[in-house]
Amino acid sequence: MSNIVKENIRVIAFDADDTLWDNQSLYDEAEKNYGQLLAPYTFGQDISSTLFKVESSNMPLMGYGTKAFVISLMQNALEMSHDTIPASVLHKILNIGTSLLNNPATPFPGVRETLTTLYDSGRYKLACFTKGELLDQENKCRRSGLYHLFHHIEITSDKSEQDYINLCTKLGINPSELLMVGNSFKSDIHPIVTLGGYGIYIPYKRMWQYEHLEEYEHDHVIQVQQFSDILQYL
Amino acid sequence: MSNIVKENIRVIAFDADDTLWDNQSLYDEAEKNYGQLLAPYTFGQDISSTLFKVESSNMPLMGYGTKAFVISLMQNALEMSHDTIPASVLHKILNIGTSLLNNPATPFPGVRETLTTLYDSGRYKLACFTKGELLDQENKCRRSGLYHLFHHIEITSDKSEQDYINLCTKLGINPSELLMVGNSFKSDIHPIVTLGGYGIYIPYKRMWQYEHLEEYEHDHVIQVQQFSDILQYL
Repeated sequence: MSNIVKENIRVIAFDADDTLWDNQSLYDEAEKNYGQLLAPYTFGQDISSTLFKVESSNMPLMGYGTKAFVISLMQNALEMSHDTIPASVLHKILNIGTSLLNNPATPFPGVRETLTTLYDSGRYKLACFTKGELLDQENKCRRSGLYHLFHHIEITSDKSEQDYINLCTKLGINPSELLMVGNSFKSDIHPIVTLGGYGIYIPYKRMWQYEHLEEYEHDHVIQVQQFSDILQYL
Repeated sequence: MSNIVKENIRVIAFDADDTLWDNQSLYDEAEKNYGQLLAPYTFGQDISSTLFKVESSNMPLMGYGTKAFVISLMQNALEMSHDTIPASVLHKILNIGTSLLNNPATPFPGVRETLTTLYDSGRYKLACFTKGELLDQENKCRRSGLYHLFHHIEITSDKSEQDYINLCTKLGINPSELLMVGNSFKSDIHPIVTLGGYGIYIPYKRMWQYEHLEEYEHDHVIQVQQFSDILQYL
């Protein structure tokens, strides 16, 4: 633990959703409202688990993101209700889903100040490396007011080891020169430390089950409680 | 006309949909089937024009692409029918839309051979520069069997002049060293020739009205009839 060699690090990349700003709790709220609307038409089946199955099965063609979620909400409502759900309820569900495209992406406390401190130090290049849908994530980066602090913004369809290798190629660095900061051990920490880089893990109170991975200790990984804590190590 | 100075060109970038493989006719077919399903519930309104308005109004948050189209199909069906459309019809509409995510992306005649000839010549780097949704476009590039011929694949949320500048920065070239090949005068030709680069315009039989721009003559632009014709100028 805590063996981050800051002299080795040239780029710090930040996950966006649930690292820089809240996202999952908006999805959880949307899913709660969805469940209440759909419940009368589901013949007692469990909505959350069937929705998750639909989302997972749509993943290879639709990927991560808000539009994929909207389509999964609609598909699951039609399937679970055996096409008995009224159009007026589907219309409300559609609106619940698409409202997520307006996530204000307000930075968590300390995020703007911490990124500004790192940016002004000039010691590292800062990048944003996030999964999701291209335009939606770009829009959130802009709304957040953090756009200008990033030397590079990369929206990616996945965060596998190969995706980290591709990112490092674009940045002109080795994986051992990258520090990734994020809330998903599976997507933000595991791949980059496997490649010899570094990770700072900032768990968030909510986690989409698709992102679950058992955490482990590793001498290239630090876990912190809040975003501004990362400055202690940099 | 025809003043393409091939000695200046370092990278040739290709649009994907309707340049390398068919896309619009699949959308047109989907919209035709959609219209037949929706017509009994539209109180005589014109489906095509109202759908286009919905798509255009969704553009700033949803962008271009299949998932955006699916959501617009559903939204427009609910709105036009004043929520009177049965769930079973909406279910069919959803399936019509999501089936577009399985576009086989079979290259047009001559595309594979032409790209292979250019690739083997080693004279130019080849890139794919296409609007749309990240994973869907990546999937089509893979299905097409052309993936390995591109030095760089860039999925972009728009094709403004700034997007071309960003592409050239990533490629390490000036816009005057880029030749763009595509079927949309608005997205593929106009921005790059404005920046001093070159365009080869290959009109396709079908064009989404959102992509309409009056064509003009320019000494950095060549128009050809079929893909393999580009070799005459390279």
